[in-house]
Amino acid sequence: MTQTAAILIIGNEILSGRTQDANIQYLAKRLGEVGIRLDQARVIADDVPVIVSNVRELAKTHSYVFTTGGIGFTHDDRTALSLAQAFEVEIEENPTALRLLQDYYGDALNEARRRMALIPVGATLIDNPISKAPGFQIQNVFVLAGVPSVMQAMFDSVVGRLVGGAPILFAAVSCGLPEGILADDLALLQGRHPEVDIGSYPYFKLGVLGVSLVMRGIDAHSIASATQDVMDMIKTLGGDPVVE
Amino acid sequence: MTQTAAILIIGNEILSGRTQDANIQYLAKRLGEVGIRLDQARVIADDVPVIVSNVRELAKTHSYVFTTGGIGFTHDDRTALSLAQAFEVEIEENPTALRLLQDYYGDALNEARRRMALIPVGATLIDNPISKAPGFQIQNVFVLAGVPSVMQAMFDSVVGRLVGGAPILFAAVSCGLPEGILADDLALLQGRHPEVDIGSYPYFKLGVLGVSLVMRGIDAHSIASATQDVMDMIKTLGGDPVVE
Repeated sequence: MTQTAAILIIGNEILSGRTQDANIQYLAKRLGEVGIRLDQARVIADDVPVIVSNVRELAKTHSYVFTTGGIGFTHDDRTALSLAQAFEVEIEENPTALRLLQDYYGDALNEARRRMALIPVGATLIDNPISKAPGFQIQNVFVLAGVPSVMQAMFDSVVGRLVGGAPILFAAVSCGLPEGILADDLALLQGRHPEVDIGSYPYFKLGVLGVSLVMRGIDAHSIASATQDVMDMIKTLGGDPVVE
Repeated sequence: MTQTAAILIIGNEILSGRTQDANIQYLAKRLGEVGIRLDQARVIADDVPVIVSNVRELAKTHSYVFTTGGIGFTHDDRTALSLAQAFEVEIEENPTALRLLQDYYGDALNEARRRMALIPVGATLIDNPISKAPGFQIQNVFVLAGVPSVMQAMFDSVVGRLVGGAPILFAAVSCGLPEGILADDLALLQGRHPEVDIGSYPYFKLGVLGVSLVMRGIDAHSIASATQDVMDMIKTLGGDPVVE
């Protein structure tokens, strides 16, 4: 049974176009390495009802949900409150989180910073080795920071809790042939390798048109066999395959 | 009445982590410029039932939906078929699209390439000045290519069809004060400027912790006033505001 995941990027700064998201790609790679299939990612606004309804929907339909963003303590940080609502629990000052913040801030622990200890009842803390304010796990939802370096450190501290499967493996071959020449043979080749997911991605690089063919699956032998067939196909069609 | 938009990025290559999405940020910026509020973006798999259900849901709940990806002619390009299913129409060889492809490919127009002329019945074509294969609009859904340069050219050719509003304007001020010092004053300041959406985004740059405060709205005067108040607040708290 394949474990599946969804990502929920909480952040008006991404939706406004001001900031380029970097968290989807990072989490996608790391989840693939531990054999968890990323089914979808959503970018949503910093808005409590929106967060609540998305968390409820995704938590029901995926093995794991990872949220990023909105766990600070300014007026636009609404993730902890939203998660409490989504799971119909209260939010409380978590004593362990409070102790972490007291140790880190000492006398500089003001009311605003103390709000970072507000965590839904029943949640498990997620260690934040960089800026101390913890994330948390509630049921199958992992609530991580939005700043990429902090999010990555938090993911490292929870990856051991995830039940995954065989790592998802890749091979990629590119060539300068247009997709239109490859399409029919490639469809036949995909039919002969049902255990490998073959993607075809055209590109323009330095004004040159080409295509990357990506073989994805969990069995190294099947991927090697499909990759060999793809290289042979490209040669037969007059192209020059390059392993990426 | 504000016009809203959703983005649907169709692509296993993004979900696998192999490719960094660049289309969300581009579309977010361009939509903001024409006064259309981007409410959400989703990245989903190249899978017909998944595409169909997402298109139906988002087309109902937003003024406009923009999809990117999956409009080529390889076995993993399923967008046109999915859109036809989503709107319960047939898919047909569009005569205008076929003529475009004939002019472009001449004798090299094989069966595979000809599949790019398969467009849902009732859709309006979207010009593709780069690689000719057209996108299309069906009801309030705009179906664009996945390759960023082609997607951008297609967006240029449809932006005139969109009914927007006043452009969404920004101002940003950063400072080296931690969020914990700013949070309470900032919440009061947001309360005094309800017409401006103030976001607080901590960052680490070259090992230095700081925060960007972003003022967003449609009225230039309101934004200027909120920005001045933010700069005064930072100075009062001992910081050094920098306009970004």
